Amino acid sequence: MRRLSRVIKVGNVSIGGNNPIIVQSMTNTDTRDVAATVRQILALEAAGCEIIRVAVIDTEAAAAIADIKSQINIPLIADIHFDHRLALRSIESGADGLRINPGNMKAERVKEVVTACQERKLPIRIGVNAGSLDHRLLEKYGHLCAEAMVESAMDNIKLLEDMGFNDIKISLKASSVLLTIAAYRLLASKVDYPLHVGITEAGTKDRALIKSAMGIGILLYEGIGDTIRVSLTADPVDEVWAGYEILRSLDLRNRGVELISCPSCGRCQFDLINTAEEVDRRTRHIEQPIKIAVMGCVVNGPGEAREADIGIAGGSGAGLLFKQGQVVRKIPEQDLIDELLKEIYQEVEKGGTGS
Amino acid sequence: MRRLSRVIKVGNVSIGGNNPIIVQSMTNTDTRDVAATVRQILALEAAGCEIIRVAVIDTEAAAAIADIKSQINIPLIADIHFDHRLALRSIESGADGLRINPGNMKAERVKEVVTACQERKLPIRIGVNAGSLDHRLLEKYGHLCAEAMVESAMDNIKLLEDMGFNDIKISLKASSVLLTIAAYRLLASKVDYPLHVGITEAGTKDRALIKSAMGIGILLYEGIGDTIRVSLTADPVDEVWAGYEILRSLDLRNRGVELISCPSCGRCQFDLINTAEEVDRRTRHIEQPIKIAVMGCVVNGPGEAREADIGIAGGSGAGLLFKQGQVVRKIPEQDLIDELLKEIYQEVEKGGTGS
Repeated sequence: MRRLSRVIKVGNVSIGGNNPIIVQSMTNTDTRDVAATVRQILALEAAGCEIIRVAVIDTEAAAAIADIKSQINIPLIADIHFDHRLALRSIESGADGLRINPGNMKAERVKEVVTACQERKLPIRIGVNAGSLDHRLLEKYGHLCAEAMVESAMDNIKLLEDMGFNDIKISLKASSVLLTIAAYRLLASKVDYPLHVGITEAGTKDRALIKSAMGIGILLYEGIGDTIRVSLTADPVDEVWAGYEILRSLDLRNRGVELISCPSCGRCQFDLINTAEEVDRRTRHIEQPIKIAVMGCVVNGPGEAREADIGIAGGSGAGLLFKQGQVVRKIPEQDLIDELLKEIYQEVEKGGTGS
Repeated sequence: MRRLSRVIKVGNVSIGGNNPIIVQSMTNTDTRDVAATVRQILALEAAGCEIIRVAVIDTEAAAAIADIKSQINIPLIADIHFDHRLALRSIESGADGLRINPGNMKAERVKEVVTACQERKLPIRIGVNAGSLDHRLLEKYGHLCAEAMVESAMDNIKLLEDMGFNDIKISLKASSVLLTIAAYRLLASKVDYPLHVGITEAGTKDRALIKSAMGIGILLYEGIGDTIRVSLTADPVDEVWAGYEILRSLDLRNRGVELISCPSCGRCQFDLINTAEEVDRRTRHIEQPIKIAVMGCVVNGPGEAREADIGIAGGSGAGLLFKQGQVVRKIPEQDLIDELLKEIYQEVEKGGTGS
């Protein structure tokens, strides 16, 4: 049962309530390099990214937002640390929202930023991060814990609420999966603002996929979370792809290819791993939901993968193409991948593009 | 709170009760190729694999088990489909346990296998697989569902219990994360046998890491699961590594390197992604628990990663080496990785090897 949160809008994207869980990412280009940043955002859009965040480290970066915005199609959030002037400048440049840690700014500076957001109806994400928690709170609780993170969030929420501002979403990220889960659960019991969920500093791709899938997955399974970012030390396009994989696994969104493939075992008589990897690589751009199977044996493969829309089962010298568990035809091993892809592209064309 | 299961033994490894969650894998070599199979099992042992399973497709494979067993150090489970004679032959060869789907064999054949297991005190895993569920059950329930999978497991359990056999563990795998979770939760409420948890046919590495982390992670977070296998269409050594990553994220086991690294962002002035990947690659063999950080900026890096035992924060031209959040020294960019690794190896040597 999903936690019922209030709805906020980032540009034309609604977050919270019964809206779909929104997938977002952050550029890793130099924001001042408009061409590189736009190129990356367009690639992210193609992967399904629905909101993009950029780091604003100086006034030049804040100014670049106007140029970037004119060439992209999704809402843009300016990520600001400490300097309220960068927040104001980003708003002028047309940012659709801010991510700040209000505790890092003096109250009168925050007031200026909040007033500017109120005038343009821009939301603010309060981004609490375990690694940069106020020393006062660490001392109060004796160590980093969920209660300290939530107190930091509540202080920041109160600061904005006291200024009459409620266009808020909140994140409480840590690199620890258990700490992150505990913090979000506690906050979810206290406020009804939409929550931006993720694990931060989760590591290199393999590591971060595991931690993010666990942290985001466990929270979403409990109904907590309105928008997600998978943080990877890797190409941000992979973050968006992984976000949809997590959401599909919980039946919350359905975009692109689901690929089923058995672990290669001693029964397998063809190069299953490389075949599956190639099919994966050559179908990642597909937006329409489709379930593809790459199975290791012709005896059990078609039956075991009968839930797949289409698939192949490899064997020694030749394999089988099947649809919904029914064998369509036998194909020589060397043509197996190309024939499968031809059939997949045909299916996708028939179905139009969905998401 | 962990579900309290009864304890069984596979060779010298105890599964269930308050024993650690055991990490296992399956070879993808031809079991008849003893040299290749032994080589893979030794690599898996080095990665921390605690139980290994091999596919037994014919009598030659069953006979090879004796040879394989004499060259490895962890318990070996024979994976048998349909043919009870292969089960009997594997037991003679010294297998430490069987994985069968008793429903696939005639009752009198199962009786022979169970008697042989009783004589040698060998456990049996009942391996129910969504893809090969009895058609009778699919028809009864109208579609593939948790109830059908659990009924199949309960039928098989009863078959063995009626023969006075209780050395049982059970798996209920599907490629769907939600179906898998629902099936295990239902079964966990009905029996106290230890459970072998995993997502099957989870796909290529990235995909399977996500699905496995979610499925296994959500179940373990609820206290369900006594041994795990991460199924990847990839090198099984990665399965073992991923298993420990999942367990560490839930504070259930602690083996090897935890690597913290920020997602590269517009603030980052060095090649964070490749640096983190290289540090990851060159530290994966370490067994001792150690927390390493690779951070993108010298201003926030050391503080944000103060929970790490050791780390670097990169900058333009030079970076910082830090321990427990305290900067130790400045290092030229080109020496950053080597200096970090030297310090890590020294730390590991000081600490001895743990797990």
